[in-house]
Amino acid sequence: MNERHIASAFDSDLEQIQTQIMKMGGLVEEAILDASKSLKNLDEELAEQVRAKDKVIDRLEEVVNEDCARLIALRSPTAGDLRIVLSVMKINSNLERIGDYAKNMAKRTSVLAHMTPVDGARGALRRMAREVQLMLKDALDAFVQRDAELAQDILERDRDIDQMYNALFREFLTFMMEDPRYITPCMHLHFIAKNTERMGDHVTSVAEQVIYLVTGSMPDDSRPKGDHYTRELSELD
Amino acid sequence: MNERHIASAFDSDLEQIQTQIMKMGGLVEEAILDASKSLKNLDEELAEQVRAKDKVIDRLEEVVNEDCARLIALRSPTAGDLRIVLSVMKINSNLERIGDYAKNMAKRTSVLAHMTPVDGARGALRRMAREVQLMLKDALDAFVQRDAELAQDILERDRDIDQMYNALFREFLTFMMEDPRYITPCMHLHFIAKNTERMGDHVTSVAEQVIYLVTGSMPDDSRPKGDHYTRELSELD
Repeated sequence: MNERHIASAFDSDLEQIQTQIMKMGGLVEEAILDASKSLKNLDEELAEQVRAKDKVIDRLEEVVNEDCARLIALRSPTAGDLRIVLSVMKINSNLERIGDYAKNMAKRTSVLAHMTPVDGARGALRRMAREVQLMLKDALDAFVQRDAELAQDILERDRDIDQMYNALFREFLTFMMEDPRYITPCMHLHFIAKNTERMGDHVTSVAEQVIYLVTGSMPDDSRPKGDHYTRELSELD
Repeated sequence: MNERHIASAFDSDLEQIQTQIMKMGGLVEEAILDASKSLKNLDEELAEQVRAKDKVIDRLEEVVNEDCARLIALRSPTAGDLRIVLSVMKINSNLERIGDYAKNMAKRTSVLAHMTPVDGARGALRRMAREVQLMLKDALDAFVQRDAELAQDILERDRDIDQMYNALFREFLTFMMEDPRYITPCMHLHFIAKNTERMGDHVTSVAEQVIYLVTGSMPDDSRPKGDHYTRELSELD
């Protein structure tokens, strides 16, 4: 077997797949920004666009999965190269999930547009989503540049997202206790907050895959956990 | 290349991996039952056990992933066999996620044990979880027997889970509007209901992988969707 030839053919195939991943990442970033903008402005038209565009992201995920399977089948990569492809498949799946959460934010926007508005919360949710989009941007840069340090930094930043979620959860409870008319809209806003926090978790696992690609081992979960009475709400899921 | 020899070696390796998957599936079924039982009885000790056992499930997922990667690297399976391994890896990931949701149910049990009890809801959640566990049992049987019909049946049954979730969501809203002391516990119970509905979605994607393994193509999503005003809550995520 001509290792050299197989290696170079593998590399050029992988290069093409990474280009697809970056394209997909760009679409997912756009989905996060547009979804949170549509929520902030209760813009049902923009929300509709986000939901339509998610089909493109889903299709891209299938293409990348197919390409990865074809790459493995055709090039029979070595154990090391195989791990790279499997990591790329995981990143691919993370991106698709983040896109789904953005789509769900857009779906709930259409529901919230017909309910009692909850002042302030939508702006806070938009800031939280913006933060997640910036983390994703850096995670994708870390992926392309194989930059473990930048990826490690994202693991830290995900804690801020968790803090934002915890603060919002308490804010929603206060709203609901103040006035029962806030209960239903706050249930939806709470889901959006939780899903945005989950987007952050998926960005984090993209970053973890990058660290794995560069260092060969997954980072230890060194995040301090409270006991099950003092545990922060963001740790419950 | 001796196709015959490679095929048989591949088959026996795959056989071993499937045994691991079934072992994992059994642990996940147990986790669902124990978590919902601990919730029903607010049994913090049992909840603690569920959370401890989730580490075993997570470890098994890693082992299966490693074994699948090794199988691909050593046997260079044909495109068809490769798809089987990739499907098994997807099922593996679905099982791990379901285990996570059971763990989360157990975590919230520990929180709910210190709050105003919400009558009836915990029993309904246990019935819903029991239904999901039975679906998972059948999905795993369908996987082992490569039974596409049984798998298709699971896709139908997931609609019942969605209905149970929608009913519970409305019940929680009623509780919260009745008495503000119910708001915080109901927020947690609602998450448990949503996560149980998501368990059903993951069981469904296990069933879809089985259909893919048998028929070579994924089932179309024929589930009727409402427009974005009438859409059921279970379709919002």
